Amino acid sequence: MPGHPFDDAIELESTEAKGVLRGHTSPEWANMVGPFGGVTAAALLRAVQLQPDRTGDPVALTVNFAAPVLDGVFDIAAKPVRTNRTNQHWLIELWQDGEIRTNATAVFGLRRDTWSDTERLRPSVPEPEDIAPTGLPGTVVWAGHYDMRYVEGGIPGDGHGPAGSSTTTLWARDRRGRALDFPSLTALSDIFYPRVFLRRGAPSPAGTISLTTYFHADGDELASAGGDFVLCRARAHRFSRGYFDHSAEIWSRSGDLLVTTHQVVYFKT
Amino acid sequence: MPGHPFDDAIELESTEAKGVLRGHTSPEWANMVGPFGGVTAAALLRAVQLQPDRTGDPVALTVNFAAPVLDGVFDIAAKPVRTNRTNQHWLIELWQDGEIRTNATAVFGLRRDTWSDTERLRPSVPEPEDIAPTGLPGTVVWAGHYDMRYVEGGIPGDGHGPAGSSTTTLWARDRRGRALDFPSLTALSDIFYPRVFLRRGAPSPAGTISLTTYFHADGDELASAGGDFVLCRARAHRFSRGYFDHSAEIWSRSGDLLVTTHQVVYFKT
Repeated sequence: MPGHPFDDAIELESTEAKGVLRGHTSPEWANMVGPFGGVTAAALLRAVQLQPDRTGDPVALTVNFAAPVLDGVFDIAAKPVRTNRTNQHWLIELWQDGEIRTNATAVFGLRRDTWSDTERLRPSVPEPEDIAPTGLPGTVVWAGHYDMRYVEGGIPGDGHGPAGSSTTTLWARDRRGRALDFPSLTALSDIFYPRVFLRRGAPSPAGTISLTTYFHADGDELASAGGDFVLCRARAHRFSRGYFDHSAEIWSRSGDLLVTTHQVVYFKT
Repeated sequence: MPGHPFDDAIELESTEAKGVLRGHTSPEWANMVGPFGGVTAAALLRAVQLQPDRTGDPVALTVNFAAPVLDGVFDIAAKPVRTNRTNQHWLIELWQDGEIRTNATAVFGLRRDTWSDTERLRPSVPEPEDIAPTGLPGTVVWAGHYDMRYVEGGIPGDGHGPAGSSTTTLWARDRRGRALDFPSLTALSDIFYPRVFLRRGAPSPAGTISLTTYFHADGDELASAGGDFVLCRARAHRFSRGYFDHSAEIWSRSGDLLVTTHQVVYFKT
């Protein structure tokens, strides 16, 4: 019986080389060119989670999309750079045809009780049940795995003009109700279509170059979020000379700030 | 004749090994433990700038502070991971005593004219000439190299209580008027004392684990900013179970958004 398409996409098997795991791209997670970057990032994180000497849970992940991932088999090499008492640093590389296509660094760590506070609170928005599901155009295959309810800043279609703000806010959940875990949170970090489309009112060539995600949730908060909608919000800061950045947050429905995430994107227009 | 202390701190000499440069820590840039992370990050960026096969200018840099940098000599190994038509990916490692102390990834790229816009505008604040210079306590040696004028959120001293917001806004410039360049912008990305001090009203153990900086400025904007004050603003999003993140911006006095930067920090309290 086939598993959930997300689990299939990040499934990795061990190889004879220490720290090296083998996976394969899934047509179901195709983007315009190559696979959805979010699922590649999730596979890189998963490769660390599967290492027997891994300590703790993800704290930070930076993924650099150096070259397009080709359809087919890939090897992910995960190497511990440094193991400290409460955290561990990893270097992760995705190889195809003898070349690094994607590389990443990750920090995993143990969490312990401290003073806690959330400053970036979940905005008040309509409930997802009160918003029509839309999503992304059917040519963006991977997006079909998510139930997306846009509060603002949906992808511009015919008749849309340029927008004055690059902010997009949407509810999203796995369409089949798969419960959140660290790999799926990683993939959700890349759920936003390029902000330049919104500002310009039309698609144009664009691709994420580097994606950084900070994980604030612990296992209990993830379990409590389950397979319910999470609220995702992104906005760009500056578009300039072929690059722009954006920053985003993901909150659970009950208001836990699960992730803050940032990326820099190459664009033409 | 000695050079500027910042140039001394990031001075690197070539070694016999390809891509490996040698530097040394500077007592003048000491932090509470080891050197100021900003100057370490700047040296890592500088190591790429000095590579003969480097393409373009910095677009993104992620520095992972895996272990304390020891006082003394260090080697920085910079390796091109991938060279594309308009950008280039680098892996950078700082070694001491046979161990990686800090590692980093960087994206360099060519910039070209495109549609441009800044959404994150420089806030209206009093001019630096109207604000008394304060800075950080004298035990934070590196901070003495900067002329800091706090608009809000200066480091809490005796008599301060916990603050409701973690936002700090300050004007900063090199005390000797050294003109901005990419390494000095990198160092400025780490100019903010830990946000948890402000929220708790007192210092406590804290250290940056991972720092990501996106460079929006091109050479012309840097030249125009010169050695004048830049406006730096940071705020945390969530403090939870031993870690917090913050995001920050640096604008030139004339309002160019030069850098957006993010970090995750370990803390105890």
